[in-house]
Amino acid sequence: MHNPIPARIAALRTAMKEHGVAAVLVPSADPHLSEYLPAHWSAREWLSGFTGSAGTLIVGHHQAGLWTDSRYFAQAEQQLAGSGIELMKLRVPHKPEYIEWLQQHLAEGDTLAVAGDSMAVSACKDMQSRLTSIGVTVRTDLDLPGTIWPERPALPSMPVFAHDPAFAVTGRADKLKRVRAAMRRLGASHHLLSSLDDIAWLTNLRGSDVECNPVFLAHLLLLPGDRATLFVQRGKLDDALVAALAADGIGIADYDATGSSLAELGKDDSLLLDGRRVVSSIAAAIPPEVARIDAANPSTALKAIKTPAELDHIRDVMRRDGAALVRGFRRLEQRLAAGMTVTELDVDRLLHEERSAQPGWIGESFATIAGYQANGALPHYRATPESHSTLHSKGLLLVDSGGQYLGGTTDITRVLALGETTSEQRRDATLVLKGMIALSRARFPKGASGPQIDALARAPLWAAGMDYGHGTGHGVGYFLNVHEGPHGIRPPAAGGALVALEPGMISSIEPGLYKPGRHGIRHENLALVIEAEQSEFGEFLGFETLTLCPFDRRALEPGLLDPQERAWLDDYHANVRAALSPLLEDADLEWLNRHCAPL
Amino acid sequence: MHNPIPARIAALRTAMKEHGVAAVLVPSADPHLSEYLPAHWSAREWLSGFTGSAGTLIVGHHQAGLWTDSRYFAQAEQQLAGSGIELMKLRVPHKPEYIEWLQQHLAEGDTLAVAGDSMAVSACKDMQSRLTSIGVTVRTDLDLPGTIWPERPALPSMPVFAHDPAFAVTGRADKLKRVRAAMRRLGASHHLLSSLDDIAWLTNLRGSDVECNPVFLAHLLLLPGDRATLFVQRGKLDDALVAALAADGIGIADYDATGSSLAELGKDDSLLLDGRRVVSSIAAAIPPEVARIDAANPSTALKAIKTPAELDHIRDVMRRDGAALVRGFRRLEQRLAAGMTVTELDVDRLLHEERSAQPGWIGESFATIAGYQANGALPHYRATPESHSTLHSKGLLLVDSGGQYLGGTTDITRVLALGETTSEQRRDATLVLKGMIALSRARFPKGASGPQIDALARAPLWAAGMDYGHGTGHGVGYFLNVHEGPHGIRPPAAGGALVALEPGMISSIEPGLYKPGRHGIRHENLALVIEAEQSEFGEFLGFETLTLCPFDRRALEPGLLDPQERAWLDDYHANVRAALSPLLEDADLEWLNRHCAPL
Repeated sequence: MHNPIPARIAALRTAMKEHGVAAVLVPSADPHLSEYLPAHWSAREWLSGFTGSAGTLIVGHHQAGLWTDSRYFAQAEQQLAGSGIELMKLRVPHKPEYIEWLQQHLAEGDTLAVAGDSMAVSACKDMQSRLTSIGVTVRTDLDLPGTIWPERPALPSMPVFAHDPAFAVTGRADKLKRVRAAMRRLGASHHLLSSLDDIAWLTNLRGSDVECNPVFLAHLLLLPGDRATLFVQRGKLDDALVAALAADGIGIADYDATGSSLAELGKDDSLLLDGRRVVSSIAAAIPPEVARIDAANPSTALKAIKTPAELDHIRDVMRRDGAALVRGFRRLEQRLAAGMTVTELDVDRLLHEERSAQPGWIGESFATIAGYQANGALPHYRATPESHSTLHSKGLLLVDSGGQYLGGTTDITRVLALGETTSEQRRDATLVLKGMIALSRARFPKGASGPQIDALARAPLWAAGMDYGHGTGHGVGYFLNVHEGPHGIRPPAAGGALVALEPGMISSIEPGLYKPGRHGIRHENLALVIEAEQSEFGEFLGFETLTLCPFDRRALEPGLLDPQERAWLDDYHANVRAALSPLLEDADLEWLNRHCAPL
Repeated sequence: MHNPIPARIAALRTAMKEHGVAAVLVPSADPHLSEYLPAHWSAREWLSGFTGSAGTLIVGHHQAGLWTDSRYFAQAEQQLAGSGIELMKLRVPHKPEYIEWLQQHLAEGDTLAVAGDSMAVSACKDMQSRLTSIGVTVRTDLDLPGTIWPERPALPSMPVFAHDPAFAVTGRADKLKRVRAAMRRLGASHHLLSSLDDIAWLTNLRGSDVECNPVFLAHLLLLPGDRATLFVQRGKLDDALVAALAADGIGIADYDATGSSLAELGKDDSLLLDGRRVVSSIAAAIPPEVARIDAANPSTALKAIKTPAELDHIRDVMRRDGAALVRGFRRLEQRLAAGMTVTELDVDRLLHEERSAQPGWIGESFATIAGYQANGALPHYRATPESHSTLHSKGLLLVDSGGQYLGGTTDITRVLALGETTSEQRRDATLVLKGMIALSRARFPKGASGPQIDALARAPLWAAGMDYGHGTGHGVGYFLNVHEGPHGIRPPAAGGALVALEPGMISSIEPGLYKPGRHGIRHENLALVIEAEQSEFGEFLGFETLTLCPFDRRALEPGLLDPQERAWLDDYHANVRAALSPLLEDADLEWLNRHCAPL
């Protein structure tokens, strides 16, 4: 197949020469700093051919490199082959280690160009201070990849819709009131939000502009006097929705008018803006006399704490999602047993069929990962019509999938034994499960952060000289993004924020293990942070597992579990059985009972 | 007893009025930012009456507060009673939370005074930026406590001596060469060190200026051309030592001449200086045209990695120290059994007698903590002739002690059952031991930091709704300070540095549990970071326990240990027995064998 990448890089270099630019930085980002980007802003993917969700491209005149983290090393190596772009392995995920490279490879007087709508205010400031100190000029007003991209996709223009109030539960006015109270505490008269999930949560609106993320492109400016302006492409909202928003003080303006509205602020205004969640080109429009308050969006902390009413819906969704998985997994096994040809793509199709039959179903919450044997060792593997494996009645199938429902967002990973497994596979799957159980059972003092407890999930693997290169857990939205902050369970990072886990937060618990060329393991549940105990030492928190689907014991080595671990697994399976059996019948129910029997 | 504190505070307030100062900040610090201060610089203790090692005093005209961390809450509460000074409980140890208080209590136009020789450059800069932004002036040229302190102790003037080369092992010239190589990498022509342990390590000199810390007051300036100047009080070094230093290019200058020497630097000089380890008043002497390189002292990282030759000495010291403890503990028990009166002070005396009989012994590495029953719940308790408990044949005695030897520094805590114990005491002691064992047995990937693995020692306590308010482990010097960086095992702190654990580093492992009014538990060993395993996932590290002394099983509930934990303890005791039995005889040997038998 012809590789189009070298020609694109060459075109970029020609444009660089014309503009006197020594290097171009192409982050993986859009003006909302979303994790998953509309195609319109996927310049990094278009220029490099690397499709992973995290990666930064730098093109110089004689060298080009792509920085990504260990989740993507194997995939990037494949996709960059023949492109002339070197894979640069990040030691610490998401850390801008490329700045050191720029410091070494750029000389005094050189110019670096980066599109100002692809970089956060804070990251831009940090990079500028580190490069201007060595005499390098950083230009954010030049989007060179944009100038050489003839077939650049248009902006998405899917309709915006209201989150059904029966599921949204908390009204828009209530949410706005809480955010305005936080603004008052911070002394802010105005507040700009660019992060799409914050805007969707705060307005109780949803959209389909980003694959699997029910958000829509917009900026939101909260104004004094209980007014606000939603900057969104005309035509995405129908008249009824516009009227409903107006009733809550929210006016509509053009998506492109965000900057000009900000330019109207004056010296008596104080603007709350999270420099990590707003891009440089938007902030550039703010007059210098406006007082800036750089703090996290209050909505980010508020939406992370799920309300009891939301949790009722989420528990219902977990039952339906779990029952759909049971049906899907059973049909998969049945087909294999019947000698039918089943591929990794069929797994996605089967789960889609079962999930989409559920009430309140909207779509997948991310692209299903169904990785058979060695493919499971690619943590973010995605089978495609061009490249996928056929399943056989042996070995392990890793299935990481999730759904968007009006009443919540799911994300679950199970490892299925399709037949004979090796003792190494079972041992690996059991060690990963020990880590999951250790964290699921853990108690920890109120105030502890995810990074403080991350090691509990890794210790059983470390003891065997093994580890995984991704985080242990991420927050999950409520019919919103499957990855949301502010909390997360991952190793502490130098200088990194430490957000305390709080009752009502949801986190995934998903340790893994990847042996390239052989197999991959990941077990993933969603868990709710709950109050566990009040003692003379203070308040202690723990987790309640929300996800309801059995683990495949044929992939495990039960002898490696200690009595407490076996008890945890038996308890979990008893809960799953009690929750799902009312939703299942006949062969599905039999399958559930068999998989949920005590070890 | 008459409390002298209110009169001292009143005198300070009078001086504050004279100088138009709204508040005085009195950190617990000297011009070397040492943890333990010569009495000359203990203004905070003199002004507040609080004797803990960590605390910050602020005196305003109508309010005064002392900030300290949870280790010292109970002690500070006692010592501040009747002083008019309010105890301010730090949420995060060592974090300058008092700045928020200053921001709230000082008004625009107010002046805050702090002695410039009591605050690090970096801390001063941070505080200044946070206070000047609200219109408060910070003066570092006014040492108001110093002006009202008639009986202020003189500077210590103990002689400086060479660390016996047979024990120092690595020559001064070699160490200087490695630091100079690091300076070249950083582009520094000069390097100023103020931290006393760095200076002692680098020069292979020792002193006795600080209680229990074999250091001497000095600053060291490394100059181009393999020369250096040691700023030290005249008369502390004899002629032979001066000549030996001269042979290695180190000249001597007055201790007070540090600033004037720095003032001679010019625009072609580049000075490496750790802004966290040099005080503001010293740095103020540096001409603005000198290029400053703010980075950690290279010696700090170098001295943390013990050499194989140092480790040979340390292992020998551990045997002698352990044998001394066995003898001391046995004599303690014997006296109690004989019906003699034994107090907490006698514990210190007994251990001192045994340790001081060892070859190469220099002194205690810190003031012995012997806390009986409820006194054990004060983590930094110190029995005094005025206030101490008499031991009885029941309950728990916590003994935390250590020695300075020419061949190493020790630090060990054991909990002795003096007779009948409660099941709560045994359960608590066993849960703490489970945490110690978990961390001692842990493996972790190369690159992991102490904060990344801290939770492993806490998880067994957390599971029971308990925790401890101090770190889990600190680095230890080689015949140097018993607390040394750069590494440490403690919960991750927001923005905190994460120093990777490296083979050759020593850390204490010392989980604890404190129930005020009842009892305290702490088990403490020193452990060496070692290479444990090389796998396809990279290099994994672990710990080798260095400390050699049995745990008192009468204080434990063996039934709460799982088989792996019992095996660890039995293995440990077998090692202790093998190592110490050649050094013990008769009743001591019998005591050792009894305490080291398998559970």
